[in-house]
Amino acid sequence: MSKKVIMPITNGFEEIEAITIIDILRRAGAAVTVAALEGRQITGAHNIEIKTDAALEDILNEEYDLVVLAGGGKNADSLGEDKQAQTLIKRQFAAGKLVAAICAAPLALHRAGAIKGEYTCFSGCEQTIGDGYVQKNVVENGNVITSRGPGTAGEFALALAAALYGKETADKLKKGMYY
Amino acid sequence: MSKKVIMPITNGFEEIEAITIIDILRRAGAAVTVAALEGRQITGAHNIEIKTDAALEDILNEEYDLVVLAGGGKNADSLGEDKQAQTLIKRQFAAGKLVAAICAAPLALHRAGAIKGEYTCFSGCEQTIGDGYVQKNVVENGNVITSRGPGTAGEFALALAAALYGKETADKLKKGMYY
Repeated sequence: MSKKVIMPITNGFEEIEAITIIDILRRAGAAVTVAALEGRQITGAHNIEIKTDAALEDILNEEYDLVVLAGGGKNADSLGEDKQAQTLIKRQFAAGKLVAAICAAPLALHRAGAIKGEYTCFSGCEQTIGDGYVQKNVVENGNVITSRGPGTAGEFALALAAALYGKETADKLKKGMYY
Repeated sequence: MSKKVIMPITNGFEEIEAITIIDILRRAGAAVTVAALEGRQITGAHNIEIKTDAALEDILNEEYDLVVLAGGGKNADSLGEDKQAQTLIKRQFAAGKLVAAICAAPLALHRAGAIKGEYTCFSGCEQTIGDGYVQKNVVENGNVITSRGPGTAGEFALALAAALYGKETADKLKKGMYY
């Protein structure tokens, strides 16, 4: 059965990060819903406009196998401030289910109390998040997976694919996509 | 002055490739126009819908520093068959200016007669393109730059940034983005 993934997102998202995660997880077989905080048509940090699959408020109460956050400063700030996004992250984390974030978005996990122990993020964000910062491309820490930036988005998405579907599926994707 | 880049594109485009190229070249300072073959709202191979910046027919006669093609089988086929896209590639190549393609899109360069000598592409496409295929992530051959697939899109886009703005700019982006 398809794993259910939700990516809450809004204006200012980092395009490479968001699209790499969505693309690779869909290739893995996941049902990925890109859910806008407000409006359905959103614009990234480099002026690429995408249409989301749903409004977050309409699907907030469904169950997900993974809640994943793309970066982009403004997007990450909004995810940290938005009540519905925070509710989603807190509920997922409290249930011991998978949450993940890249670039500046670990800040939004931190706001939800979901970062305990080792994590990584875009350089500088650790000054707000605090103890546990390690300089690795991807950090897997229990049910929390974090990563650094656009150039690590492929490795991050493949780690998420492995967490959901196993290493064999991820390795196959990695090879077929030239990662 | 901003370098002018055009990416002719249509339904079925590979999302990681298209978005990585646009994002990195905009970070480098280029004025990148994403130009649809038909319609302004297009959908990628993994069901991500983006809004393009223009219709190709409206800006076909402008001059560009780079014509770059993302992959995705259906997108690459369309770029090979579309008269306007083929005109654009032929004119750019004949002027000795930069053309580039990744994944299946070197097929569209081939259709325009723009592949002579060494190139790379997504595995299998070389059976149509013919002699000159090499298994490298990025091949720079005069004014033609080619690459293999989603996982090499970052390296490809950074090579394009270096060709337009110099190695120092590309190296700075590479480091700042964790490539």
